[in-house]
Amino acid sequence: MNPIDCPLCRLDQSTVLFAGPHWLAIDAQDPVYPAFTRIIWHAHVKEMSDLTRLERTDLMGVVFEVEAIMRKHLNPDKINVASLGNQVPHVHWHVIGRWHNDPTFPDAIWSTKAQSADERARSAAHRKSLARRLPEYHDALINHLNGLYS
Amino acid sequence: MNPIDCPLCRLDQSTVLFAGPHWLAIDAQDPVYPAFTRIIWHAHVKEMSDLTRLERTDLMGVVFEVEAIMRKHLNPDKINVASLGNQVPHVHWHVIGRWHNDPTFPDAIWSTKAQSADERARSAAHRKSLARRLPEYHDALINHLNGLYS
Repeated sequence: MNPIDCPLCRLDQSTVLFAGPHWLAIDAQDPVYPAFTRIIWHAHVKEMSDLTRLERTDLMGVVFEVEAIMRKHLNPDKINVASLGNQVPHVHWHVIGRWHNDPTFPDAIWSTKAQSADERARSAAHRKSLARRLPEYHDALINHLNGLYS
Repeated sequence: MNPIDCPLCRLDQSTVLFAGPHWLAIDAQDPVYPAFTRIIWHAHVKEMSDLTRLERTDLMGVVFEVEAIMRKHLNPDKINVASLGNQVPHVHWHVIGRWHNDPTFPDAIWSTKAQSADERARSAAHRKSLARRLPEYHDALINHLNGLYS
């Protein structure tokens, strides 16, 4: 994929929570998984092993800062961290808070799982309550990254 | 999950490629995705942010060494790196080589995708050719980790 065709090279700036020196932290705005923050390396690089050791340490540093702040403010049952890039081969990391009553738990969010009507209602109610707590998490994350990287 | 019930605390030793000071590198022995190496932290720890910064750097260091050796010897179309742990909340990392003709590409391996008979045949043929090259990758990985960590 050429940088000119890459959606992560031409990102919707309204989703950006914090612009670091070498990466952006964005709200993934996933309708099903609200606690979903994405860290995107600025440069159009395909794999983590294309970065230098120092660049990898910088990038993983912020990934785990995001994880820590998400745990502190949203207390998910589990955190999922992944860098796949099969569709968009431009290094980016997903940090996803998971709960026992989300639609695919304990499977990956990319799996499919049939939910009963009761389970769907519980997932929707949980998602609604989570959405109310999201601004507090985002504010805390922005403040924290500001303190570390500004 | 109690360590006594944790499958990663009582691992089948025959899958171990290399035992590092704080982690194991194992062949995931996935029947569908042969280029699948897993790095498992020795201690029963739930999240990456439960490790110290130094421990995280150590663990991610080997994850990306695995990625580099896998690229060098198997040349996948893309590498997927993920730490989920929803089913087994004991820190471990998946490093998965992906090819355009594997059964779920470009989706995550945890997704489901209907394949035509032709696609299934191509995936099976590719898997077979990959299985023949796997010992070379495993040998190179073991030698490389031996050089770094012994």
